[in-house]
Amino acid sequence: MKTRIISAIIMLPLLLLVYFGGIWLKLACIAISFIGLKEFYDGFRNEGAQPCYIIGYCSIILLYVLHFAGMSLEYFNGGAGQYAPGRETLALLWAFVSVAASLIYGMDVEKRKNLDVVSTLTGIFYVVFFVYFVVLIDESEYAHNYIWLIFIIAFGTDIFAYFSGMLLGKHKLCPNLSPKKTVEGAVGGVIGSMVFSVLFGVFFLAQGHALSIRFIIMACIGSVVAQLGDLTASAFKRKMGIKDYGNLIPGHGGILDRFDSVLFVAPYLYFYIAVILPMFI
Amino acid sequence: MKTRIISAIIMLPLLLLVYFGGIWLKLACIAISFIGLKEFYDGFRNEGAQPCYIIGYCSIILLYVLHFAGMSLEYFNGGAGQYAPGRETLALLWAFVSVAASLIYGMDVEKRKNLDVVSTLTGIFYVVFFVYFVVLIDESEYAHNYIWLIFIIAFGTDIFAYFSGMLLGKHKLCPNLSPKKTVEGAVGGVIGSMVFSVLFGVFFLAQGHALSIRFIIMACIGSVVAQLGDLTASAFKRKMGIKDYGNLIPGHGGILDRFDSVLFVAPYLYFYIAVILPMFI
Repeated sequence: MKTRIISAIIMLPLLLLVYFGGIWLKLACIAISFIGLKEFYDGFRNEGAQPCYIIGYCSIILLYVLHFAGMSLEYFNGGAGQYAPGRETLALLWAFVSVAASLIYGMDVEKRKNLDVVSTLTGIFYVVFFVYFVVLIDESEYAHNYIWLIFIIAFGTDIFAYFSGMLLGKHKLCPNLSPKKTVEGAVGGVIGSMVFSVLFGVFFLAQGHALSIRFIIMACIGSVVAQLGDLTASAFKRKMGIKDYGNLIPGHGGILDRFDSVLFVAPYLYFYIAVILPMFI
Repeated sequence: MKTRIISAIIMLPLLLLVYFGGIWLKLACIAISFIGLKEFYDGFRNEGAQPCYIIGYCSIILLYVLHFAGMSLEYFNGGAGQYAPGRETLALLWAFVSVAASLIYGMDVEKRKNLDVVSTLTGIFYVVFFVYFVVLIDESEYAHNYIWLIFIIAFGTDIFAYFSGMLLGKHKLCPNLSPKKTVEGAVGGVIGSMVFSVLFGVFFLAQGHALSIRFIIMACIGSVVAQLGDLTASAFKRKMGIKDYGNLIPGHGGILDRFDSVLFVAPYLYFYIAVILPMFI
């Protein structure tokens, strides 16, 4: 417990990367993608699968090369009114190439099981694709500040769930999957997410918006999404026969152990920004 | 062989659906997604996996509901200049929900293996996602006619590869995976794709474009993509321990056996239209 808190405090300065945003945040996302993907594939290897690390790493490189290429095209062509493919077109192109590459990996029928193929593919979408939404939120024109909400919802949920579970926890949430989690902890996490989000919103977003029903519902569902992310990671680990994805962060485990809820919250929040929010402004 | 040709001729009228496009083509794509996904999951079941059919089917429904919702919003809001999320934003939203749902399926740790989870996910991206690009091409504003090229490249490759392999085939292409395929057949397929594409282009697209280097390269690479789609499907089947994905079409097998190259060519062509083409017009 002590190690856990000390590690958390040591990691706090990393939030500066979120504050700076732009290239620094992208570099952090690239690093997290690499380490997270390796941890995920290592887990599968523990189960006897042989996911293709090279395809996974190449897919990370492709995603960010496409991203920077798209940015440059926008920059150089934008002024002249010429065409540049949008971020989302490029993200779909990346998804197609990544799926196709993973499937083609299976063509070596003597050596590759279907599990090798599909675990390669899953790692790419679970880790690389989901982390990419942090970048997309950072670049969002009118909702740049929302990037903080990813961490407020994810870590707010974690912390509140932890302490309210410890103080009030009586009813097990899912004893088979994660024996320590309680219903009281889960509810506490949801309340924590709503409280922190509204506090943040009142100070740093449009105040009227932060107190609106849809913002509070967003924080509430966001916390459920965060907890699903957490449980999903536990389920994978359980079946891979590992306790943690790694030991990079003392007391927390690997990158994926720490960011399991962030992985789910980032895309969730992006679509709140990209689909729901614009309907009201 | 005779059954094969008769079946092909009987299926020809189905090309009318491509001609009509719009809602008819969408309904055909929805049907192909359902049948194809079922065939793919059945194959995995044969291997001992238990992919979740319900999640797969729901993801098909979600994709097209989002698509129609986006269309309606554009229609009703477009005039007033109000916001409507684009096709590609919605496709990414769909991808996120589908990945998350597949992963959450694994939370029942007692019953679900990791293979069940990742095969569910793979079916969704391999079948549902790839088929959707047929719809996206059909709705493309300035490249609607390109939809024919999907079938010209895929079936042109198939037919030319078949006959040139039969007449000239000497060197095995990949004896372990697909013993009947020859290098000569593969090269013949590429030539067939280029010849048919240029013929089509000269008559139905801008003539200058159809004779341009980039169009011919597009048809050439398209044929390679089509053959990779074919081999990928073979690799899956081989490891699933089945000969065909189904017996829906006498002499051809299941929907996936017939459309394995289309699955790869459709997204490939979409990105040619969405990323490459606009840079030249």
